[in-house]
Amino acid sequence: MKVAKFGGSSLANATQIKKVGEIIKSDPERKFIVVSAPGKRHQTDTKMTDLLIQMGNSYLNGLQYETNLKLIMDRFTEIIEELNLSNELLIEFETMIKTVLNAEQSNADKLDAIKAIGEDSSAKIVSAYLQSMEIDAHYINPLDAGIIVSDEPGNAQILPGSLAKIYTLHEKDGVLVIPGFFGYTEQGKLTTFSRGGSDITGSIIAAGVKAELYENFTDVNSVYSVNPNIVNDPKEITILTYKEMRELSYAGFSVFHDEALIPVIKEKIPICIKNTNNPDAKGTFIVSEREVKEDECVSGIASDTGFCSLYVSKYLMNREIGFGRKLLGILEAEGISFEHAPSGIDDMSVIIRERNISPSKEAIVINRIKEELHPDMVSLHRGIAIIMVVGEGLVNTIGVAHKAIAALTEARVNIEMINQGSSEVSMMFGIQSTDMDRAIKSIYNAYFVKK
Amino acid sequence: MKVAKFGGSSLANATQIKKVGEIIKSDPERKFIVVSAPGKRHQTDTKMTDLLIQMGNSYLNGLQYETNLKLIMDRFTEIIEELNLSNELLIEFETMIKTVLNAEQSNADKLDAIKAIGEDSSAKIVSAYLQSMEIDAHYINPLDAGIIVSDEPGNAQILPGSLAKIYTLHEKDGVLVIPGFFGYTEQGKLTTFSRGGSDITGSIIAAGVKAELYENFTDVNSVYSVNPNIVNDPKEITILTYKEMRELSYAGFSVFHDEALIPVIKEKIPICIKNTNNPDAKGTFIVSEREVKEDECVSGIASDTGFCSLYVSKYLMNREIGFGRKLLGILEAEGISFEHAPSGIDDMSVIIRERNISPSKEAIVINRIKEELHPDMVSLHRGIAIIMVVGEGLVNTIGVAHKAIAALTEARVNIEMINQGSSEVSMMFGIQSTDMDRAIKSIYNAYFVKK
Repeated sequence: MKVAKFGGSSLANATQIKKVGEIIKSDPERKFIVVSAPGKRHQTDTKMTDLLIQMGNSYLNGLQYETNLKLIMDRFTEIIEELNLSNELLIEFETMIKTVLNAEQSNADKLDAIKAIGEDSSAKIVSAYLQSMEIDAHYINPLDAGIIVSDEPGNAQILPGSLAKIYTLHEKDGVLVIPGFFGYTEQGKLTTFSRGGSDITGSIIAAGVKAELYENFTDVNSVYSVNPNIVNDPKEITILTYKEMRELSYAGFSVFHDEALIPVIKEKIPICIKNTNNPDAKGTFIVSEREVKEDECVSGIASDTGFCSLYVSKYLMNREIGFGRKLLGILEAEGISFEHAPSGIDDMSVIIRERNISPSKEAIVINRIKEELHPDMVSLHRGIAIIMVVGEGLVNTIGVAHKAIAALTEARVNIEMINQGSSEVSMMFGIQSTDMDRAIKSIYNAYFVKK
Repeated sequence: MKVAKFGGSSLANATQIKKVGEIIKSDPERKFIVVSAPGKRHQTDTKMTDLLIQMGNSYLNGLQYETNLKLIMDRFTEIIEELNLSNELLIEFETMIKTVLNAEQSNADKLDAIKAIGEDSSAKIVSAYLQSMEIDAHYINPLDAGIIVSDEPGNAQILPGSLAKIYTLHEKDGVLVIPGFFGYTEQGKLTTFSRGGSDITGSIIAAGVKAELYENFTDVNSVYSVNPNIVNDPKEITILTYKEMRELSYAGFSVFHDEALIPVIKEKIPICIKNTNNPDAKGTFIVSEREVKEDECVSGIASDTGFCSLYVSKYLMNREIGFGRKLLGILEAEGISFEHAPSGIDDMSVIIRERNISPSKEAIVINRIKEELHPDMVSLHRGIAIIMVVGEGLVNTIGVAHKAIAALTEARVNIEMINQGSSEVSMMFGIQSTDMDRAIKSIYNAYFVKK
């Protein structure tokens, strides 16, 4: 039994929804379907969820919202007409929107209810379309599915106990189509997850029904081993572990909403990233454990810019018990989360995302460090890029670090930082942002291009 | 004007003291002389300070101490007779010992006073011997020299204000011979520094008199670029910066007492390590800043065994603000000082000296981590060796890390950890202790052996 989740691009228009129909029809194991709201039809298009948010904000601010409403209804009309579905759905959607707008509730709750209309309508459309294909499909509301969440509008958390309720979905016949992105509080109030939360619904349903496979349909054939904007036609990844996925997504790979994976990871359910536009492509499997071939110890190379390094040096620092903790404590007190804090003997570097430390915050932090820790030197250096070389085979493979470092040296890249060994599945390099593309190409060639 | 400090091996017997006399005579700039107690004359000999401590403990425990006293006086007798000095010195030393033993004071203070006799007698012997060479030499007691310290027996700290007093030593004529290792409290009570504290005295005197050079006479021609027990006839280091010295001494190089250097570092006084047995050898200069030649970016390779790695892994660790601080806080609360704490995305490794975490402490710490931080995994791995590659030229030299890593790969050494970039003058590698000698030889060859 599989759970298949379709993202926004898979539901952007009738053509896409027809593909979704074929995909569901082609495999009777696809019993639980989770859908996003209609996404962009083309580069400059607006997502349904954004149209809904604009309408909601206009309404709440007493501005005219009818233009937005018309745009929304036009998109639904286009989809429903092209799919030859009943106009009654349109009437249902418009009634639903107006009911929500007029309901007596807090602004936060109303906005949540408005946002959820995209996914909810998607599920109803897909369900109706599957029925028109003579599939025994049923729309299931998240309340009926058992998705019980905390009362945190826009950031709901699944409550313990939900999974057992969700498991009872097995008792229902046919294909069940469930809208992503929202659940209901114990008091029965609709509440949404954080943005991108359809992945959360998919993951919860997969964990709840104990699926054999959680299929995540997107618009790419697979996860690539490196950013295709830097390296042309990179190798597709066929299998990854959860840990590898997580390390890759940290530094630029954005296939998944990280938190979303927690339920499937706990249940060790394999995930498959597949392409709605090319369902025959094998996709990328993400699993709990995998076999590692000796010559394929690296799975992928991720990279991200926008880091800075806070450098603190003090003679005999390492004799001063608690120095590192005090330094990190200052950052925490100033609300600055840090990424890594490698230390030398009398030196410590703290890697921080530049967006997390404004120039004014920088001045405050440097002042506090000077006054509270009396260092010999403290400085902050911006414009750093991070490269993550990720692979389950990294640990215990002799020479794997050598390959990356030789590649960086060959590309004449100065290595500002190497952090290897703290993670079992990755090595991290810090370089100047301006060197990044050159560095990535060289490392990619070293691991992936046969010579 | 130079301060010359002579270590125990330079004062072990009359032959050595004669060399010291020649060294002082050969350079009129050597005005301030700091001496240790007589050291070992041969491998199995006992240092004078240890004889004194044994005697003191016997006395304090009501045991017979006369055998020790005889051994002590025999050594002094041998030295004084061979140097043809007056027997009055012997009478003075024996009287001093008896006075100290019989004095009304706490055990800690008495032990300090007993320990200090080694250095004090050394200074008197050297002063008398220099006079016999017709040098205008004077013994100066630390009280008269202005070495005023805190009242912490066995761990005295120099008090602010001492340096100004010490500067007035310039007003005295001739060569001044000052015993190392102890000072006096503001109440006039003799108190010793921590063991090896003659280096502290030398450094304080050098800083106080604002010496042009602080000469530290030992029994080696220079600091070597690598442990001579691992690599035969290694390259001698001619110049090092304070920072390089510190990083090297962290991992096995034991030329200096780290704290001892603080006063000279603050005053930016150059240090020269020289050999009493071969004073014509240039020695190793240790300076504040130095020029770096492009092909000599590495100064030395230090190594040390006896480390372990505490590994903690938790999905989404890096989203959890304060996780690292909490982990280090547990170690601090358990009194465990750590060396480094490199972190990955969802992983953190803490490098700890094995002697600092007993198996029972390990169990407590792992339990607390499990209960307080709920990690996915926590484990401790012993038997790790650390290699430090040290050099002022490391920063901004492309390919320098490559050389070390290529050497480790060539030697088939698995690299457990790389920490580069947190220090500007060192790279740190973690490997299995069993691989250490092989690893060191290979890295040494890569940087120091012309091919």
